[in-house]
Amino acid sequence: MTYPLQTIQEDDGAVVVLDQTRLPGETAFVRLTTLEQAAHAIRVMQVRGAPLIGATAAYGVALALQQGVALEQALAVLSVTRPTAVNLRWALERMKASLAEVPGERRTELAWAEARAIAGEDVRANAAIGEHGLKLLTVLPRRPLQVMTHCNAGWLATVAHGTALAPIYAAHADGMDVHVWVSETRPRNQGLLTAWELGQAGVAHTLIADNAAGLLMMQGKVDCVIVGADRIAANGDTANKIGTYLKALAAAAHGLPFYVAAPVSTIDFACPQGSAIPIEQRAAAELVAAGTPAANPAFDVTPAALISGIITESGVFPAGQLSVLRP
Amino acid sequence: MTYPLQTIQEDDGAVVVLDQTRLPGETAFVRLTTLEQAAHAIRVMQVRGAPLIGATAAYGVALALQQGVALEQALAVLSVTRPTAVNLRWALERMKASLAEVPGERRTELAWAEARAIAGEDVRANAAIGEHGLKLLTVLPRRPLQVMTHCNAGWLATVAHGTALAPIYAAHADGMDVHVWVSETRPRNQGLLTAWELGQAGVAHTLIADNAAGLLMMQGKVDCVIVGADRIAANGDTANKIGTYLKALAAAAHGLPFYVAAPVSTIDFACPQGSAIPIEQRAAAELVAAGTPAANPAFDVTPAALISGIITESGVFPAGQLSVLRP
Repeated sequence: MTYPLQTIQEDDGAVVVLDQTRLPGETAFVRLTTLEQAAHAIRVMQVRGAPLIGATAAYGVALALQQGVALEQALAVLSVTRPTAVNLRWALERMKASLAEVPGERRTELAWAEARAIAGEDVRANAAIGEHGLKLLTVLPRRPLQVMTHCNAGWLATVAHGTALAPIYAAHADGMDVHVWVSETRPRNQGLLTAWELGQAGVAHTLIADNAAGLLMMQGKVDCVIVGADRIAANGDTANKIGTYLKALAAAAHGLPFYVAAPVSTIDFACPQGSAIPIEQRAAAELVAAGTPAANPAFDVTPAALISGIITESGVFPAGQLSVLRP
Repeated sequence: MTYPLQTIQEDDGAVVVLDQTRLPGETAFVRLTTLEQAAHAIRVMQVRGAPLIGATAAYGVALALQQGVALEQALAVLSVTRPTAVNLRWALERMKASLAEVPGERRTELAWAEARAIAGEDVRANAAIGEHGLKLLTVLPRRPLQVMTHCNAGWLATVAHGTALAPIYAAHADGMDVHVWVSETRPRNQGLLTAWELGQAGVAHTLIADNAAGLLMMQGKVDCVIVGADRIAANGDTANKIGTYLKALAAAAHGLPFYVAAPVSTIDFACPQGSAIPIEQRAAAELVAAGTPAANPAFDVTPAALISGIITESGVFPAGQLSVLRP
């Protein structure tokens, strides 16, 4: 499957990213040439989605070294751009491990190569997630198959294919009749991105208010739920976009499979359980106009017990049995 | 307790309603002098909230008779303005019963009197709901007490006091330190109305995305949930604003009391269970700009088993034991 646009690509010593803050109304690209531009792109969510954040951070290190910024400073600046997605930290630690012992003059070149490797591995991992997830969808009998998702964990959130949407794209490519319930995902409305990218790919979909998820399940209009993840704790508890937990509770109440799709790099083996995952609090202004007191947590944690399986590039695992994947 | 504005009042043969489509930005009133204007006000949600819809429909009958429109036609026009709130049908049936046997020349005068009686009874019923609900809040130990609500079931949704917010106003008046988590309530954002009216009354509150409800409960930041109702089936299943069901599931998962506050007129004894309640589908345009397929159900049904108690003007009842209230 090809996608209409590349979310991130190299261009002559710069990194060009699709500006997701301007979608779906406008297709615009931002050219990143400095550490600060890369950090800004992550912070303001021009790039978003845990895997794409990781790849962008890796390229941000390459840009920093190219500028003459010290590795340690680049890592420090990039590591605080977003707190919840573990792929950010994972990518930065991988860059650090690759570069720490390398002489200064070779570091920039190697940083570009390593960032490129991270991006390439994301593409392959997500393609594999699609294939493993497809097997789960195939056994569900109804056609069109009714899949619910939350936020955007499609190709826009990754270097290609997506995570939660990868099985759906694989099913569509396989000729399966599939329809996606797309949750609006307040307060930042990433559901509009999901609707847009599904539309681009020709996959049938219907946008709903986040609030409608329970009713649709009660009415028997949902066969399964697939979401992405920003961080999966060692015990399988999963942090994902705020509202994911409510969908997991509703799926459990209706006996529906609830899958999390994410590359193994999203699993934080250093984090024992969900309560240890930091939850990003974003500005109240994302929610309302000034003048009303507001709280805006960006993620919630879904307990492992509510997750039917975690779809990774290495296969599908029970949320409580991730230790086999420990590196 | 007094409220800053009257949601509905008579004025020299007309009915003046607060235009809730322009809140919280603007305080404007609409003067209704005809049946069609009353029906329009309900349909476009200038007035909203099940009890206020009922009162407005009753006054709509008076306006129609005053115009010379036949009673049957007035009832027919008003009965189809909104499908889910049973108070609408209840108010119209009461008007019909009061007026059917009355000679034509006396009908208009009696219609005004009956509409006035319905409005007055709503004020008294809600005051009683506040007092009964206050007893439930008093036994919860934390201060500030953390109450979550959904949509707007405050004085704006009624003739006065509110339903779900009546116990909160009673607690505030009683000197209790109380804080309200106000759910945004997509797609029409009635949470902004709740935030606005709580602010007017000086009650501490914080607006949240609907998606944040589960996380706040998991974090131990919620002591109970109180919502209103648009229709309660005979078995206690409750239709309320879309998203209520997800909050009820989350409250149950965290062992938190989940209360429904509504006058007895909201109970539809002719409706055996929630699956028989018609769910209004509103325009996709409320959710997104044109071009994206969307579904917009306006209500969902919370099963009686998830409801800790129904707070009425006659006391608090287990959701499964409403038959004692059957008239």
